[in-house]
Amino acid sequence: MTFKKLTPLALALTVLPVAVLAQEADLTPPPQDVGFIFTSFMFLVTGFLVFWMAAGFSMLEAGLVRSKNVTMQLMKNIALFSLAALMYYLVGYNLMYPGDAWTISNVLGAFGTATMEPVGLAGAEPDLTYASVGSDFFFQLMFCATTASIVSGTLAERIKLWPFLIFTVVLTGFIYPIQASWKWGAGFLDTNFGFLDFAGSTVVHSVGGWAALAGALILGPRIGKYTKDGRVNPFPGSNLTLATLGTFILWMGWFGFNGGSQLYMDTAGNIADISRIFANTNTAAAGGALTAMLLTQLLYKKPDLTMVLNGALAGLVSITAEPLMPSLGSATLIGMIGGAIVVFAVPFLDKLRIDDVVGAIPVHLMAGIWGTLAVPITNPEATLFGQLASVAIVGAFVFGTSAALWLLLRAVMGLRVSADDEIAGLDKAELGMEAYPEFANT
Amino acid sequence: MTFKKLTPLALALTVLPVAVLAQEADLTPPPQDVGFIFTSFMFLVTGFLVFWMAAGFSMLEAGLVRSKNVTMQLMKNIALFSLAALMYYLVGYNLMYPGDAWTISNVLGAFGTATMEPVGLAGAEPDLTYASVGSDFFFQLMFCATTASIVSGTLAERIKLWPFLIFTVVLTGFIYPIQASWKWGAGFLDTNFGFLDFAGSTVVHSVGGWAALAGALILGPRIGKYTKDGRVNPFPGSNLTLATLGTFILWMGWFGFNGGSQLYMDTAGNIADISRIFANTNTAAAGGALTAMLLTQLLYKKPDLTMVLNGALAGLVSITAEPLMPSLGSATLIGMIGGAIVVFAVPFLDKLRIDDVVGAIPVHLMAGIWGTLAVPITNPEATLFGQLASVAIVGAFVFGTSAALWLLLRAVMGLRVSADDEIAGLDKAELGMEAYPEFANT
Amino acid sequence: MTFKKLTPLALALTVLPVAVLAQEADLTPPPQDVGFIFTSFMFLVTGFLVFWMAAGFSMLEAGLVRSKNVTMQLMKNIALFSLAALMYYLVGYNLMYPGDAWTISNVLGAFGTATMEPVGLAGAEPDLTYASVGSDFFFQLMFCATTASIVSGTLAERIKLWPFLIFTVVLTGFIYPIQASWKWGAGFLDTNFGFLDFAGSTVVHSVGGWAALAGALILGPRIGKYTKDGRVNPFPGSNLTLATLGTFILWMGWFGFNGGSQLYMDTAGNIADISRIFANTNTAAAGGALTAMLLTQLLYKKPDLTMVLNGALAGLVSITAEPLMPSLGSATLIGMIGGAIVVFAVPFLDKLRIDDVVGAIPVHLMAGIWGTLAVPITNPEATLFGQLASVAIVGAFVFGTSAALWLLLRAVMGLRVSADDEIAGLDKAELGMEAYPEFANT
Repeated sequence: MTFKKLTPLALALTVLPVAVLAQEADLTPPPQDVGFIFTSFMFLVTGFLVFWMAAGFSMLEAGLVRSKNVTMQLMKNIALFSLAALMYYLVGYNLMYPGDAWTISNVLGAFGTATMEPVGLAGAEPDLTYASVGSDFFFQLMFCATTASIVSGTLAERIKLWPFLIFTVVLTGFIYPIQASWKWGAGFLDTNFGFLDFAGSTVVHSVGGWAALAGALILGPRIGKYTKDGRVNPFPGSNLTLATLGTFILWMGWFGFNGGSQLYMDTAGNIADISRIFANTNTAAAGGALTAMLLTQLLYKKPDLTMVLNGALAGLVSITAEPLMPSLGSATLIGMIGGAIVVFAVPFLDKLRIDDVVGAIPVHLMAGIWGTLAVPITNPEATLFGQLASVAIVGAFVFGTSAALWLLLRAVMGLRVSADDEIAGLDKAELGMEAYPEFANT
Repeated sequence: MTFKKLTPLALALTVLPVAVLAQEADLTPPPQDVGFIFTSFMFLVTGFLVFWMAAGFSMLEAGLVRSKNVTMQLMKNIALFSLAALMYYLVGYNLMYPGDAWTISNVLGAFGTATMEPVGLAGAEPDLTYASVGSDFFFQLMFCATTASIVSGTLAERIKLWPFLIFTVVLTGFIYPIQASWKWGAGFLDTNFGFLDFAGSTVVHSVGGWAALAGALILGPRIGKYTKDGRVNPFPGSNLTLATLGTFILWMGWFGFNGGSQLYMDTAGNIADISRIFANTNTAAAGGALTAMLLTQLLYKKPDLTMVLNGALAGLVSITAEPLMPSLGSATLIGMIGGAIVVFAVPFLDKLRIDDVVGAIPVHLMAGIWGTLAVPITNPEATLFGQLASVAIVGAFVFGTSAALWLLLRAVMGLRVSADDEIAGLDKAELGMEAYPEFANT
Repeated sequence: MTFKKLTPLALALTVLPVAVLAQEADLTPPPQDVGFIFTSFMFLVTGFLVFWMAAGFSMLEAGLVRSKNVTMQLMKNIALFSLAALMYYLVGYNLMYPGDAWTISNVLGAFGTATMEPVGLAGAEPDLTYASVGSDFFFQLMFCATTASIVSGTLAERIKLWPFLIFTVVLTGFIYPIQASWKWGAGFLDTNFGFLDFAGSTVVHSVGGWAALAGALILGPRIGKYTKDGRVNPFPGSNLTLATLGTFILWMGWFGFNGGSQLYMDTAGNIADISRIFANTNTAAAGGALTAMLLTQLLYKKPDLTMVLNGALAGLVSITAEPLMPSLGSATLIGMIGGAIVVFAVPFLDKLRIDDVVGAIPVHLMAGIWGTLAVPITNPEATLFGQLASVAIVGAFVFGTSAALWLLLRAVMGLRVSADDEIAGLDKAELGMEAYPEFANT
């Protein structure tokens, strides 16, 4: 576009010979463009919703850490999203969709001159058999970034910035796309195991969860979290309003996450399916939140807001593997079980002295496994064996490679800040900048 | 979908025989699907915008209560949305749209096995005469949830959690959908009174306002709000940044609230109307905000931010009954009067010793009535009598049933926390969890 | 619409003679409406994203000022958006798109009775050669408001409310639309200089930046910012979580800002272009953020979060002049240079003792100039001379008129609060209302 439109408001308000104008140059698209426009625009809308989840994770995590570590948590979140954007572009996207032949040259090709070309075919000659490559890339990129967001929450308040970022580079550039190709790149989990994972309870959420679990085990708990006599110190989050905002943001973004995974919006059937996915996604979150509220009321006599937030998120993760086939009732139940998992898994992890600052392992790993195994309940095309085997294979790969990488990083540069720095807070020690510098801490 | 797309970036960057590919399988939708896709997708987009309003209410209310009650306010907001989601699905949706025959069996049917079926017809066989049922359900659900959000703000800082939630169950499952059916379910207000309420100044906003007013009268004011010698203690909000964020979120969500209520996006005429609704909604909010700023400057010599925020919201409520017909100028004026109502109604309520913590009654009830009565000014199809009668009938029904329910709840389980708990704050007393635990309160 | 849909959920769940229904009344739009609906809906979606940037600026600025000035900063932001909405409607839109003849009557016409007409043609008779007037107006309005948001950040913590708002009136009603008409209204920069500025690195962002620079020079720095012995006091932001949230909001909104500037979504080519713009916009932001992180690590041994946030924003501003033509690689590089500009420009401005509270001049003015000059690198239709000349002409006009207006306002009513009020904070002194009244300041 070399200039914007000319019609002034005043002109539009006069009586115009509309029919004549309309005959001069109307905006009738060629029929074969219509479904392409629908699907591509759907990817852009659902893609910006998934982008928005990056803000949701940032607010959730910043709200759940102690105020002395907030700046660092924000830094990690904006940096991990940016790194994911670059790594998925440079390596991950081609690694994930190897096409007919999964050759190393195809992968390395991404580093070559081809990356200096515009994304996808030029507007003048799009491939009309699917969405525009740019819209697909934009949408898929956001999923890759989500994986990395999950890890940062678990390992908060003690991991150094740079090893975390190096891990993020490998996770988003290699670990995530390689295992994602097994399912979404038409790899062996898809073809040999009949694995079904609509929007990624396993492919996205459990992957983040496994990487986080490996990190938590190797990194160890925060100083003072577990006492020698077996007590657990709660370390309450510093800003529950922002944690709640983060949860609402994630809930909203999840409509894009699950809805966009329909991948097509070119027919009435596809939009009817996307609509059902939106409704099911919402009700699963509601079920998870209410279950966590009721269970914490029953167990602890007081409903626990952070459990309710994580319950909603666990409901969302649970429905992600199959958001289309369940009825509203089944979707609610699937989400409710997700919410219950969180309530029991959080103290269970504490018993194992696995310190997960924001509860990402219960939410993304455990509810992710539950959601994946629940697919056969409503979708007869899935088998429990295929789901279980795929969960195990993905888990072994991600946990193994992540653990190896965490150990390597620990050996080479150290993973953990010094005890003094941890007690002082990462913000002062590592960044020299506080998130709330004017407010007196108690 | 069993797997995601295959075309790698590198492939897309090579010179492809595009025309050949395009001939193989293009995405041309059947012509009769196009309007269905447009309308359904419009409902999903406007629906997630209205969902977003739940976050807006949460932030607005969390920002306007004192910090000792913030966690409770967040808990109420996420719980009420979740309850609304379930109740509207289990009962409300069918109650609101009874179809040809409004029979109790039709209503009870919703409790039956049918609710275990997927929402709407399967993607393969959608009903092409309107939007997909799933998208319509998703959109309408969000309106129901909005009603409950309004109540929580007024009654903050003193009402117990569980009676509030039980009220929410009845409001979202029964009170809201029954009266909504009188208008939007083609009931007697629609057919006999010619009542016009495009997006719900009365059907949604005043309903929340009446329920809140009944609650405020029965619950009584907060301790210390009104002194014996007639003074009013201001109790300033604890976080005006988040209150402002909440207002912007609500403003954004309102584009979906009013725009989606056009209900169709299948023709140039409908999208032109939706566009005008977006523009009018925006300018009414701007008018309300500026009016509140100017009036508080004139009356108090200092513009009052919380009045400006509520002024914007009152402008939005005012234009909701008729966002299509007014010109930009008329829409601005309608919003300005809404903003003025807030400035005068807030101290008026205080004079009556009705304690409305966030100003929801002036914003949603009073500006809602104003907006409803203003419809005949720009829409000749409406009559002042029809509008007035409908406001009165809806008001009597909602206020009456709400008051009865509040009184019942007070008798059975008590509505109000103890004076000690209220002074200590609901967060510590009822939840044992503070929203900002590290920050010293003054 | 006089009533909402009737089909109850239960009805939809029964076996319906779908084919019969579909024949009765389907939603097939006339073919000539389809592109009109696509483009108009695209403007509404990208428009609400750009609206959302108003919230982003509010959070960014509220997070970067000291807590004693937060309420004022929120007041300015909501007021400036509202004023922009009114002024652009009353004057700016017609001034910006003068149509065939740029006559004063055409401009004044906007004040006349015509403004009492609904926006654009009625839904029944839209002009099908472009988007609906309402959607175009809604979208363009948001750009105008953005310009004003930029100014408020630079001049925070010392400027009085009312002169700032009067400046906003002139900026949004006259200065912005006049210069915008030179390019987007098909004026002389477009026709004579071949100036290319896709979404407004110069037309929007540098305009805000020049106005802010003129204000900063005339207003002078905050008390205590620069000491006599040449030191710079940092004055850290009071809430980095909200500043980060603001950055994410702006990042999200920018997809609409740049994507919507394609202006058409009626063909596969256009949506393919919009998709590339989304992907390029995202990667430029990521490049800017990472560059700022790496550079501050190298220069100061500690990465600086506020620099990272501004680096992302500078990346976004940099790609705004030409978000379509670059490859992902080039877009990343363009954004990276933007991020580098911020890191070096912030201390450079401090050396000049130009006090820019939030870094808006480096981000919007300097990166805006960079982005504009970078267009010829990827778009052969642009010339370096045409770009340079246009930057200079726009800059001279905006800086000159802004400086004149600031000086006039200073002479007539004073621009700056008293030293006592500045030290006490604008919230107490000018508004009598604190943003965080319960939290003890250190």
